[in-house]
Amino acid sequence: MNSFAPALLTDQYELTMVSAALKDGTAGRPCVFEVFARRLPGGRRYGVVAGTGRLVELIRDFRFSEAEVGFLREAGIVDETTAAWLRDYRFSGDIDGYAEGELFFPGSPIMTVSGTFAECVVLETLILSVLNHDSAIASAAARMVTAARGRPIIEMGSRRTHEDSAVAAARAAYLAGFASTSNLAAGARYGIPTTGTSAHAFTLLHDDEPAAFASQVAALGKNTTLLVDTYDIAQGIRNAIAVAGPDLRAVRIDSGDLSVLAQHSRELLDSLGATETKIVVSGDMDEYAIAALAAEPVDMYGAGTAVVTGSGAPTAGLVYKLVEVEGRPVVKRSENKATVGGRKTAVRRHKPTGTATEEIIVSQGVPDHEPNDRLLQRPIVAAGEIVEQPALRESREHLRQCLISIPWEGLKLSAGDPAIPVTIVGVP
Amino acid sequence: MNSFAPALLTDQYELTMVSAALKDGTAGRPCVFEVFARRLPGGRRYGVVAGTGRLVELIRDFRFSEAEVGFLREAGIVDETTAAWLRDYRFSGDIDGYAEGELFFPGSPIMTVSGTFAECVVLETLILSVLNHDSAIASAAARMVTAARGRPIIEMGSRRTHEDSAVAAARAAYLAGFASTSNLAAGARYGIPTTGTSAHAFTLLHDDEPAAFASQVAALGKNTTLLVDTYDIAQGIRNAIAVAGPDLRAVRIDSGDLSVLAQHSRELLDSLGATETKIVVSGDMDEYAIAALAAEPVDMYGAGTAVVTGSGAPTAGLVYKLVEVEGRPVVKRSENKATVGGRKTAVRRHKPTGTATEEIIVSQGVPDHEPNDRLLQRPIVAAGEIVEQPALRESREHLRQCLISIPWEGLKLSAGDPAIPVTIVGVP
Repeated sequence: MNSFAPALLTDQYELTMVSAALKDGTAGRPCVFEVFARRLPGGRRYGVVAGTGRLVELIRDFRFSEAEVGFLREAGIVDETTAAWLRDYRFSGDIDGYAEGELFFPGSPIMTVSGTFAECVVLETLILSVLNHDSAIASAAARMVTAARGRPIIEMGSRRTHEDSAVAAARAAYLAGFASTSNLAAGARYGIPTTGTSAHAFTLLHDDEPAAFASQVAALGKNTTLLVDTYDIAQGIRNAIAVAGPDLRAVRIDSGDLSVLAQHSRELLDSLGATETKIVVSGDMDEYAIAALAAEPVDMYGAGTAVVTGSGAPTAGLVYKLVEVEGRPVVKRSENKATVGGRKTAVRRHKPTGTATEEIIVSQGVPDHEPNDRLLQRPIVAAGEIVEQPALRESREHLRQCLISIPWEGLKLSAGDPAIPVTIVGVP
Repeated sequence: MNSFAPALLTDQYELTMVSAALKDGTAGRPCVFEVFARRLPGGRRYGVVAGTGRLVELIRDFRFSEAEVGFLREAGIVDETTAAWLRDYRFSGDIDGYAEGELFFPGSPIMTVSGTFAECVVLETLILSVLNHDSAIASAAARMVTAARGRPIIEMGSRRTHEDSAVAAARAAYLAGFASTSNLAAGARYGIPTTGTSAHAFTLLHDDEPAAFASQVAALGKNTTLLVDTYDIAQGIRNAIAVAGPDLRAVRIDSGDLSVLAQHSRELLDSLGATETKIVVSGDMDEYAIAALAAEPVDMYGAGTAVVTGSGAPTAGLVYKLVEVEGRPVVKRSENKATVGGRKTAVRRHKPTGTATEEIIVSQGVPDHEPNDRLLQRPIVAAGEIVEQPALRESREHLRQCLISIPWEGLKLSAGDPAIPVTIVGVP
């Protein structure tokens, strides 16, 4: 097994801070930490909250067993008082946050963690790791889904990212509207539809291409996808239809000028009577490559590297900041980043038609209520107990609705401002 | 636990290929697969092989338990013949490869997997996930180490990547020469030195900065690092020395114009008699930011986002290709990528001084032997048994030696050609 107990997926300074705070009596001070992004990466117009569904389970299981405490003691990282505190650790505070699948913008308080300083500070790394990774993938994937204009996209990037990230990436891509994944663990763990038929190696293994196609059809039936670009694509398509007949489900093209190849392949398939045979394209697909194929006779996309690496933005840039201590707002001063202290409340304002117009965030207060406002934060954990664990399909539907609600400019792939303005009202 | 059995960290098409190959009798054909990169990302001059140490354990544990086979059967992904084959699965072939910590260039056959088609093809995703991730991190980290010119670098990027990737990233960064990590699981799992003291939250928690510093020194002693940029840096340094005295180990600055701040901080520390107090800088450190601080009085760097995301290249671009079937070389033809079929043998050629001059790769043969040639491939797994599991510290030392051996131009950060030319001699 390739796994770690969640409690050690932590930066050492969290435990040294707990250690010092236990000693000086500040460990129990009531605190509020917030997760937000200072900016969106590279002109993106929105971010997508993802990972909450995975995170709540990890927080529930965040305990320091004797093995972990033993390591920390032996390494001299914590003293015995802290070790005793860690043995008893169990998060007993509250977590509120944006729904999984919700959009976020610079400053959106997507997660608010409140409790004692010590119990909240030790969750920093785990919360950020999960949300930064999954949100980065979902944010990139959502743009691909928009670019695909309703055509299904298969996530097939497992090989391009860490083996466990791959499973989370498949989840985040599905949340964002991908149709399926090649990753079997994601199918087993999250019930995501899985797909996959064959690689070039399968054709190369056989004495010739027709032999490979015949073998695949014999094993998987005609409702399969034959990969036709191992040698010559036109000949590959002829071989595919000769072997499978005109009711073959699909052919896949993984290389070359996909725009031209899709057109030629469609014409050839039609001329062979295979008018219902789909064309799947893959190979270096990102949101721009997908958009560029919008007018071509492509039926399905396979996306790999770009989606699992966040298409240029592999991390969402989320931070976890202490904003309130014993009811008073706190903020780091020496930065020229406009951070506002205090617990925030956020609403999204909409036109009567349902189109979002603005996000209003108020520190230590509540925005004036207007009709069509939507309160963005909801309880996730209360007094240490999970209130609501997001279900993947609900998060997926939530995002779909959110993307319908933003102004159409917000869906453009080009670099620009956030889809809606964000107003943060600070404490006086 | 946040873990998956290695066998499901797999793309579905590997199992459908096995299924078809079992049916048509080709599953047992002796095959050779190779891992290589077609190019280095964005003008990089070398790549670093990393992940082998993790991979051999995962391959050893790559078995399909009843739970996994049950999922595959229920989901209709494999038939009963394939299920039976999976239940008995155990890799019994050979794996040869470049040493962990070795440099690689376009076309370098960094791993060669041989055995039956079926037993080799199911390892594709796992091998690529591990090597692509870890090599991407190590390749970026090595450039940072070069840029730091002997000053230590702390890896502190866990929060910016998937929680399990974070542990592997800490390992890869240490392999590349980083001094330590903030990640506790990496300390526990791989024995990497861990470090960490406090965040801005710790200062904000307290009534004022001197109270926070006093608490930290009381808990951790003077051999600690005080974070001085929560409010005003100059005042922070005065507070730090007032509290800890001039034999404070270090101060850390995490924001602002680090070049100017390092100079001012050094002058101020010296004027306060703290001439031995070190200056640690962190915040958006990549290889270029580190290089830009070479002339400044910085003693240590903290690197986060850039290292765990591969500094612009989050995946190493490694592919796993079938190159030989029953002794005959095979190659996908329709691509304009110059791929050469056949099992390759690679040597690195050196001047008598030890400087590398060229990498020679021969398909289905062995390069002419010259004095100072170094054979790059070594046995990793033989007949399914681990021959040699790379030890992290040895891999680290191996890389250090390799970086000494390449021409100095190869260490430049600017975009350029690979550090040494690669000659691939194909079959006629």
